[in-house]
Amino acid sequence: MDRVLMCVPNVSEGRDLGVVEQVVAPVREAPGIRVLECSPDPHHNRTVLCYMGEPERVLAVTQELATRAFALIDMARHKGAHPRLGAVDVVPFVPVRGMEMAEAVDIARRFGRFVGNLGVPVYYYEEAATRPERRNLADIRKGEYEGLPARLQDPAWQPDDGPAAFNPRTGALVTGARFPLIALNVNLRTTDLSVAERIAQAVRHSSGGYRFVRAIALPLEDRGLVQVSMNLTDYRRTPIPRVLETVRSEAARYGVAVAGSEIVGPVPMAALEEVVRHYLQAHDFTMEQVIECALLGADPAHAAGSDGAAQGG
Amino acid sequence: MDRVLMCVPNVSEGRDLGVVEQVVAPVREAPGIRVLECSPDPHHNRTVLCYMGEPERVLAVTQELATRAFALIDMARHKGAHPRLGAVDVVPFVPVRGMEMAEAVDIARRFGRFVGNLGVPVYYYEEAATRPERRNLADIRKGEYEGLPARLQDPAWQPDDGPAAFNPRTGALVTGARFPLIALNVNLRTTDLSVAERIAQAVRHSSGGYRFVRAIALPLEDRGLVQVSMNLTDYRRTPIPRVLETVRSEAARYGVAVAGSEIVGPVPMAALEEVVRHYLQAHDFTMEQVIECALLGADPAHAAGSDGAAQGG
Repeated sequence: MDRVLMCVPNVSEGRDLGVVEQVVAPVREAPGIRVLECSPDPHHNRTVLCYMGEPERVLAVTQELATRAFALIDMARHKGAHPRLGAVDVVPFVPVRGMEMAEAVDIARRFGRFVGNLGVPVYYYEEAATRPERRNLADIRKGEYEGLPARLQDPAWQPDDGPAAFNPRTGALVTGARFPLIALNVNLRTTDLSVAERIAQAVRHSSGGYRFVRAIALPLEDRGLVQVSMNLTDYRRTPIPRVLETVRSEAARYGVAVAGSEIVGPVPMAALEEVVRHYLQAHDFTMEQVIECALLGADPAHAAGSDGAAQGG
Repeated sequence: MDRVLMCVPNVSEGRDLGVVEQVVAPVREAPGIRVLECSPDPHHNRTVLCYMGEPERVLAVTQELATRAFALIDMARHKGAHPRLGAVDVVPFVPVRGMEMAEAVDIARRFGRFVGNLGVPVYYYEEAATRPERRNLADIRKGEYEGLPARLQDPAWQPDDGPAAFNPRTGALVTGARFPLIALNVNLRTTDLSVAERIAQAVRHSSGGYRFVRAIALPLEDRGLVQVSMNLTDYRRTPIPRVLETVRSEAARYGVAVAGSEIVGPVPMAALEEVVRHYLQAHDFTMEQVIECALLGADPAHAAGSDGAAQGG
């Protein structure tokens, strides 16, 4: 497989798992498609899916998935904690291997045209945006599904594809192409949410932090911790170690230690390469040196040790 | 490819690159064999090769390689800085995927029998050793090529395969199976070799350090540094971060900083997983989350940034 495209649709159903499975089925059953994630969230009433494969196949299964979602989900009755604009809320395409960003943009636009022809208003965002004020998902989603009828009357918010008419059943859809982002959560050994809030403020771009960091603070009440929940939107220019070390240093100001961190979902190889280079000070390390050694993983009882010179053999 | 075996032959020719290429040719030309390393060292007068593939193919190309090396290299005229016993000095087989250690031992013994039938004395080491005192390569290699005629007279050092007779052209061969080892060099910001020597002593097993570490100290004269050169022989039980942090802490005692480190040659995925888990405190991180994102690596000029909530899209 030479060219690989990833797709991360967010679908507005996270409670009725029967519906979720029907929507996801075309993806699961497609040959050559690898599903990396399928996470229904009842509180958000939303499912985040992530799969990858050959670009044309990814486009085809995503069209099938959208068609099913429009048939099975009625936005007029949707409630959930997460902001949303439609039944298939947002569909980012991410070039993973052997592809240029322009090709991912092209796929996103073809997907948008398909959805528009089904009678659903479509907005293009990030790299596929038609104007600067539509790059940012949060800006497009302002007012949410409930604000759509008014927004579609606004000349500044005419859809990029599909009709400029409110479709109560489907709402609108946002699609586009973007660089792979990394979801990094850092858990802090305190119950004081204001510490996480101050750290989120320190690292995120919108309040003076790193150019490619988005961050919010969350309580983890059942664990007695608070969390700085971050998206790194360009790990090449704002790498994981730099962000984590800043979080550690800001937390230390308040006498708070890092309890642990989580990378949620897929992470690009090159981002980990930088983690290894940074912390090992291994300036020339490359992931091409990595071999898979899954065997022998369970029980190290049989490994040998010997003490000769540190070379050869 | 379900089952993968790695082989790391050390051949006693590192100056005549024409000879090296003739010896290596059967490996390079074999379909289904991936060459990871071929490093001739003129000072050592030795070439370290590393390749992997389906186990039976690896055995076959290694037999061809040995046959060629015996035809082209004359140990009676060999001089070099590295300890050696024969023209094909040591041939470790390393199970990489879908294989048990016992299967790698079986391949090593079949290879040994093949070499023995060519009239070359063979010793089995590490997991393939026939007795405890032959596990350690340095013990087998004691006295080197020059001491072989006397050693082959010693009842305690009768070969495991092949004739108990000195073969002046080929010397003897050591083969076996072992766990994948990691070659980790840490460079220190000083020209004082005694600092590296004290650190090597602190971390290596033979002088009271970690169970699965071998270490020596080396000057890097042209760079004005010294080096702690280590082999980690079981990264599951003596992991990279623990060893590196000990080196850093011992170096700090002398006011010396780590200038950088190098991982030489292949490194198992699981060893890097532990590096990421340790330094990011990402206790549940798994390499299964890793996707390849080689594209877009060169010029980050086109990546987008936006500042919405740290979730979705």
